[in-house]
Amino acid sequence: MAWSPNTWKTRYTLNYKGLSYRTEWVEYPDIEALCKKIGAPPTEKKPDGREHYTLPVIHDPRTKAVVAGSVEIANYLEATYPATPTLFPEGTRALQHGFYMLVRPTILSPILNIVIAPVWQLLNPRSQEYFRETREVAFGKKLEEIASADDWAALEDGLQRVKECLDANGEGKNLLLMGDRICWADIQLASVLIWLRVAVGEESEDWKRLLGLHDGRWAQFMAQFKKYEHVDI
Amino acid sequence: MAWSPNTWKTRYTLNYKGLSYRTEWVEYPDIEALCKKIGAPPTEKKPDGREHYTLPVIHDPRTKAVVAGSVEIANYLEATYPATPTLFPEGTRALQHGFYMLVRPTILSPILNIVIAPVWQLLNPRSQEYFRETREVAFGKKLEEIASADDWAALEDGLQRVKECLDANGEGKNLLLMGDRICWADIQLASVLIWLRVAVGEESEDWKRLLGLHDGRWAQFMAQFKKYEHVDI
Repeated sequence: MAWSPNTWKTRYTLNYKGLSYRTEWVEYPDIEALCKKIGAPPTEKKPDGREHYTLPVIHDPRTKAVVAGSVEIANYLEATYPATPTLFPEGTRALQHGFYMLVRPTILSPILNIVIAPVWQLLNPRSQEYFRETREVAFGKKLEEIASADDWAALEDGLQRVKECLDANGEGKNLLLMGDRICWADIQLASVLIWLRVAVGEESEDWKRLLGLHDGRWAQFMAQFKKYEHVDI
Repeated sequence: MAWSPNTWKTRYTLNYKGLSYRTEWVEYPDIEALCKKIGAPPTEKKPDGREHYTLPVIHDPRTKAVVAGSVEIANYLEATYPATPTLFPEGTRALQHGFYMLVRPTILSPILNIVIAPVWQLLNPRSQEYFRETREVAFGKKLEEIASADDWAALEDGLQRVKECLDANGEGKNLLLMGDRICWADIQLASVLIWLRVAVGEESEDWKRLLGLHDGRWAQFMAQFKKYEHVDI
């Protein structure tokens, strides 16, 4: 069973909508072959120009649709099951994308650096080999040399910015970006924080310190998503 | 008559709401004394810790309120005249603040660098002296040495990011952040672009080139605000 951080996002999207689903875990070296077999398109280009196949991918047995990429999956589900709650309330797509662009360099990047070595330890041997080889090429260094203390400082700074955004909503509405409903940009942030929690460990000093930052704001933020933290395997 | 870029923002806010108003122009060296006289609070701290008084400031003769700062003014007007259109639709304050944080370093900062020398030329002599002295201390260099070609490159890159956000709204809804209505974050962006246009000149090659970027996107964006470009003096 391969552990892919993106898979965690899929789970939220699906659960939030109340749609039933089943998760299949895929070892890293098997992702490309599986995608080709079920007709899932590549989502990115590798540095050398070759197609890159990534998870999450969903297969909807009702419509036979195969959709790759977390935004594309969210869009597909919104369009196909419109009676479910939307993650993109009318008029908020550009603003939510802007929020994602704000947190990508300030929060996602430092978390990516921090988790990469501990994530490797969580993988099965087949995936470990693939993961190390591809990531060390991408980063140009050993997995164990990617994280630094600067990443934690950058992450804290990034969270401070998000807190400032949330506080613009005013007292009592500052735990979610849109105040009283979960939107796609909240899930982007929650999912990378869960990624971090899984990688460094819920009992680690680092995680506990993060939850204590900004008067416990991030503990309160994460609590909003607790009820969706369940995987149907 | 002092020209303050912030004053332009005020005008939008007021006009958008359909409230009548009258603009009083203030020479830079007179701003602090005027604010103290009418009871407008300082909005910032100077690097040396002293209070800093800035425009825009409004005085509402109906309520006797005196409000300083463009966000504070927008909030005051929204709360005091709720029957007017809102710049902060329910649930969008945090997202709009996030957008502002995205464009502050990527668009506002390069524009600030670009306009500072040409703005000086637009001022009356009394304000020129004050403006040069205070800005040269703040930047640590001559006004004429602040802008560089890098600022134009940074600005183009910043606008490319905003275009990416707008395009997330989809065809036909990609001229304003919320699709079919003007919000506060649009006005933030439009107002600094007008600042740039006034500073470099509508007929300048630089401005024409900017309007031609990204398939004329910024000419289309600015056109959305044309009807508000009127100052009641």
